[in-house]
Amino acid sequence: MKAPLITLTTDFGLADHFVGTMKGVILGITPAVRIVDISHAIPPFAVTEASFVIAQAAPYFPPKTVHVVVVDPGVGTSRRPILVEAMGQYFLGPDNGVLSMVYTGRPHKARHITAERYFLREVSQTFHGRDVFAPIAAHLAKGLAPAKLGKRVDDHLKIDFSKPVRTGKRAWTGTVLKVDAFGNLITNFHITEFPHLRSVRPVMLAGVRMVERLAENYAEAAPGEPVIIVGSSGFLEVAANQDSAARILGVGVGAPMELSLY
Amino acid sequence: MKAPLITLTTDFGLADHFVGTMKGVILGITPAVRIVDISHAIPPFAVTEASFVIAQAAPYFPPKTVHVVVVDPGVGTSRRPILVEAMGQYFLGPDNGVLSMVYTGRPHKARHITAERYFLREVSQTFHGRDVFAPIAAHLAKGLAPAKLGKRVDDHLKIDFSKPVRTGKRAWTGTVLKVDAFGNLITNFHITEFPHLRSVRPVMLAGVRMVERLAENYAEAAPGEPVIIVGSSGFLEVAANQDSAARILGVGVGAPMELSLY
Amino acid sequence: MKAPLITLTTDFGLADHFVGTMKGVILGITPAVRIVDISHAIPPFAVTEASFVIAQAAPYFPPKTVHVVVVDPGVGTSRRPILVEAMGQYFLGPDNGVLSMVYTGRPHKARHITAERYFLREVSQTFHGRDVFAPIAAHLAKGLAPAKLGKRVDDHLKIDFSKPVRTGKRAWTGTVLKVDAFGNLITNFHITEFPHLRSVRPVMLAGVRMVERLAENYAEAAPGEPVIIVGSSGFLEVAANQDSAARILGVGVGAPMELSLY
Repeated sequence: MKAPLITLTTDFGLADHFVGTMKGVILGITPAVRIVDISHAIPPFAVTEASFVIAQAAPYFPPKTVHVVVVDPGVGTSRRPILVEAMGQYFLGPDNGVLSMVYTGRPHKARHITAERYFLREVSQTFHGRDVFAPIAAHLAKGLAPAKLGKRVDDHLKIDFSKPVRTGKRAWTGTVLKVDAFGNLITNFHITEFPHLRSVRPVMLAGVRMVERLAENYAEAAPGEPVIIVGSSGFLEVAANQDSAARILGVGVGAPMELSLY
Repeated sequence: MKAPLITLTTDFGLADHFVGTMKGVILGITPAVRIVDISHAIPPFAVTEASFVIAQAAPYFPPKTVHVVVVDPGVGTSRRPILVEAMGQYFLGPDNGVLSMVYTGRPHKARHITAERYFLREVSQTFHGRDVFAPIAAHLAKGLAPAKLGKRVDDHLKIDFSKPVRTGKRAWTGTVLKVDAFGNLITNFHITEFPHLRSVRPVMLAGVRMVERLAENYAEAAPGEPVIIVGSSGFLEVAANQDSAARILGVGVGAPMELSLY
Repeated sequence: MKAPLITLTTDFGLADHFVGTMKGVILGITPAVRIVDISHAIPPFAVTEASFVIAQAAPYFPPKTVHVVVVDPGVGTSRRPILVEAMGQYFLGPDNGVLSMVYTGRPHKARHITAERYFLREVSQTFHGRDVFAPIAAHLAKGLAPAKLGKRVDDHLKIDFSKPVRTGKRAWTGTVLKVDAFGNLITNFHITEFPHLRSVRPVMLAGVRMVERLAENYAEAAPGEPVIIVGSSGFLEVAANQDSAARILGVGVGAPMELSLY
């Protein structure tokens, strides 16, 4: 028996009734579904960070999983709710770019969700997570055909996530996409674009400090020593063994990172 | 197949073993149950806030859901554990008013839970969430008749949640019931009591600032501009587009709010 | 129908994609499993605290539950992943002592997990929670025999958690094992070692303050008054009614506690 799966990613936090209420709506419609929280601690309105988080998690979920991403400063305005089919899975969210990192560079189909008969009867202006996305996710998980939800669109928002810019023969400028719970700086340098990394000497300028050592794991470094790591998502990270690289280097999300390969 | 549902609302936080332990007890008794967390970040002992949270979430859950609310400064004293049946659902908690907002103004039945044979064999003085409420919830979810748990009572604590007080022909004094994760101030002015709100000019005094604009959604306001919104629970909120109204106005839970309608 | 159970205890936090990703891996392998979070707010690399948390929660779970504990400063090094069978349940984690409090003083079997065919195809150097422990847990929950995972070992790390030291006829020096969400100081004095506690007069020196009152429950004390309580796990706690004993006494994890019995 393969129960359908729904995941939730929001900036709602876990202190209020918001997330639990969405789950009540979902389980009322499709009681057999399994619900997995990805994160509800996306900083308020941080569309890019939410996009990064769901793009990292989704590839590890089984086919047909329905991912709901609600980070939505424009809730109640005319911005559209969309459904994206990609990687054999479903993604629901507002059309504000929050799903971009999922579909950028991947074959996918997008639909503008207009089938109001699947919304809650009363739709508030401020809580579409409960009134629109939760019931739509539940109906999809239950087997509703995507085509029933609305027409295909092609003009959905594509945000170009910053890619490193080449600034010299062996030099690139990138940025910090995310600081994780350990204070590791996850950059936008991806190992697939630097396949020879391990055979050259990479040096990264993070804040005012040169990080000159490529380590295979955190423990290889001395405690507190910043090192470059190929992270679990393939992005280069600057990490400090048992310490926070973000704190040590004074660097946060959006900071520039200079990579040189010698 | 409709699995029974249990929800949990506590002030236990998510750092300790408390919530996970309650789930172990529940799943040991009724393995098929689905457990949904509403919130475990109720401020310690904040009975009113817990009551607000469960009252907002419960209407979105299916019939027969068992809601467990444990915010219990008097754990281990003679305060009674109670079961309340309301809205076709079950509510379990200490008789300290934490369920009041669920049953106030609604038909309901309350019982004093005395059936110790359904408690864990050893009941501690400090963790009734694990030893009393979790096993009772599991047995209820499994189909135990409420009458088996204890006798009907009528003297369960009814806390009168503050309602706005009329202070003039067009003036009311209310209060802030909750500040949500976005910093929105959820007041005790409910739209059902002010049905003509949208055809008059509402003005709210929040802290030292007059909020004079009624907006349909957050994005309608300029970033940082405080506006009045009819929130997703029907309570008027003071919100600031992409910012925290609580921070901007310096107002928190329990602060007075003056509403005038012109 | 008894669905298998997996619990998760990590220092990953809930903000990133880490925990959700582990659940995706698990549910992809064994869709029927139920997953329970114990805590993801273990302080980074706090092996002892994680060990305490899982040791408190596990006894309340049904037989065959698979507990995954990933607090792992040595991820990617040669430290071994181990499986421990104890109390009729399974425990998975790195061999760094994080499971010690579960098996210390209990009959148990340990195995070095070497069956790489059950790992994810690509194993990163930094996220064994996703690549090693999640799939192993899923296969175990699905019924895989422990012997298939690797050979028995006997030299797994046994950390001696500090026990109180007798310093006089009626005097012991212990320590604070954990500060819970309420600020209660959970000590390593266990009621089973002081069975006559209630018939003598216990006095505890916590920081610079003598705590001289043994209370049956929190509410018995005046608000803010520090008292000694026999906690829900059997460890003596210093608690302050509706307040944080940790804050009032200026005492944290690892602080010495002197107990005298008169």
